[in-house]
Amino acid sequence: MSRSADGAARAVAALRARGELWEPAPGLVGLRGDALALRNAIERELAALAAACVHELGGDEWLVPPALPLATLERAGYFASFPHWLTLASHLSDDPAALERVASSARPADAARSALAPAGAALPPAACYHVYAALADATLDGPRAVTVQCTCWRHEGERHRALERGWAFTMREAVCLGDDDAVGRFAERGTERALALAGTLGIGARFALAVDPFFAPTARGRALLQRVKALKHELLLPLGDDAEVAAASVNVHERFFGESFGILLEDGTPASGACVAFGVERWLLAFLAAHGPDARDWPSVEGGSRPSAKAVAESREPRAASRRS
Amino acid sequence: MSRSADGAARAVAALRARGELWEPAPGLVGLRGDALALRNAIERELAALAAACVHELGGDEWLVPPALPLATLERAGYFASFPHWLTLASHLSDDPAALERVASSARPADAARSALAPAGAALPPAACYHVYAALADATLDGPRAVTVQCTCWRHEGERHRALERGWAFTMREAVCLGDDDAVGRFAERGTERALALAGTLGIGARFALAVDPFFAPTARGRALLQRVKALKHELLLPLGDDAEVAAASVNVHERFFGESFGILLEDGTPASGACVAFGVERWLLAFLAAHGPDARDWPSVEGGSRPSAKAVAESREPRAASRRS
Repeated sequence: MSRSADGAARAVAALRARGELWEPAPGLVGLRGDALALRNAIERELAALAAACVHELGGDEWLVPPALPLATLERAGYFASFPHWLTLASHLSDDPAALERVASSARPADAARSALAPAGAALPPAACYHVYAALADATLDGPRAVTVQCTCWRHEGERHRALERGWAFTMREAVCLGDDDAVGRFAERGTERALALAGTLGIGARFALAVDPFFAPTARGRALLQRVKALKHELLLPLGDDAEVAAASVNVHERFFGESFGILLEDGTPASGACVAFGVERWLLAFLAAHGPDARDWPSVEGGSRPSAKAVAESREPRAASRRS
Repeated sequence: MSRSADGAARAVAALRARGELWEPAPGLVGLRGDALALRNAIERELAALAAACVHELGGDEWLVPPALPLATLERAGYFASFPHWLTLASHLSDDPAALERVASSARPADAARSALAPAGAALPPAACYHVYAALADATLDGPRAVTVQCTCWRHEGERHRALERGWAFTMREAVCLGDDDAVGRFAERGTERALALAGTLGIGARFALAVDPFFAPTARGRALLQRVKALKHELLLPLGDDAEVAAASVNVHERFFGESFGILLEDGTPASGACVAFGVERWLLAFLAAHGPDARDWPSVEGGSRPSAKAVAESREPRAASRRS
């Protein structure tokens, strides 16, 4: 219980005790019962919020596959930026002798670990890479906005904690590529909507400037950091006891992904881009921290994406909160 | 287009041409537009069908995590049965020097493939393993029914084909554990409901006896095959040109999983089990084969899980169709 706050930790403990939350392995969580119903309601609100962000630019929702070519992450500069988080998917070798050794082993799990083909795909560390890859080498005839949701993977060693920091977790994103003005307005509207949703859900919230935890030591990493110049703001939701969780982020990437993926405006210059990303489980956790683990105490979630005056916005210096995307 | 039928292949080609279906890598498919709306409507129908199957036994829906401990598959005898399909998830080593080599490499994807920690989890080859694992070593006080949906992974070498045979695909399952009578009735009701849904969707369908494609050569595999005695029926949906796809299966496992996972009835004997499994993308493909790729030609999908006289049931000998679970 080192870092996690009392309210959140108590809520997770209550869900575990009710059998509504279980962890087959560190960072991998299952849900059922009231906790699942609440998660799904929050997921729908975040989907509606993201849909509103992209609809006003004529955009739509995509269903992206659950893995990416490694070449996509290479093009995105991911390996120099965040290699410490990465998870790859490897199928077993198709060599019959290797399979036979697995099938007949007294310790088949260990045998399988030793019989893998070279990794064939990356499990996505963020949903938006799928969008950049699908639009690669295209010329946009105007702002292009897309919302996607997928299971994302970030391995964080011993730091996994149920709902707060999963090896696998659910990310909803709204992504926009276009000229600076359209992208800037998109990021602003996303910021407003995220704050409004937190307010409607009865969760205190504030935006703070943040920096991505780039993999530090390499010259390449530093160069990327310069090049990205990502302006990142995180929506921090309270977990109790002064702890907070970064449950959304608004990331203005300027021309980084337009350049990296050859996504051009009609004048031939690289598109600017921004994404607004939400961690579904973190919203669930913050809701539980605010309202407790008992469903009888929960305010209604449905229709919560209307604006609200309860949202509180203030900015402050970058800090090392729990953060994603 | 070796095996895939004309109707299905033409529909997939039309979706590709409209930009509604794309494959970032073999066996990994993205969807948008009308195709995505149709997929989601079919997904909801299958969810409602599975919910009906489990609700009448007092069961509920679980959200299972996107990966499994390898120990779960070991307990299920999976490595001796289907090692050829298996995909594992491995995060990068947390050794800073190894990460540094990845981050500074001129070919970082290759460097990352060489810097993996031993695989930490398995990507699920079927959704129901999560249920057996969560109920392991429990004594049931009556039939226990659960519905789950998750992305499942089966690598099939060069045989991947969009919507028909994905490396990753979406599986909806209804699972029941209990005494033979309850499990038998559950399997019967699932069979009836699957046929009824196909009829309502305007898709000709028939059930056929099937055998799982066990990994053949090992003595252990043969012993498992004996022990499982799985009675498997597949719902075959037409793809045109006499081709069919196994879009659902009803699997009666007798006491195999009850024994393997120590799931007991109140009298201390192992529970029997059955699952009804649906491949969401295969239903989408069969719908497209039946009604064409143009949304204007599609019958309404919503509310389709009512019984229908159009469903046709006949059984025949086991055969090697496209099959799952």
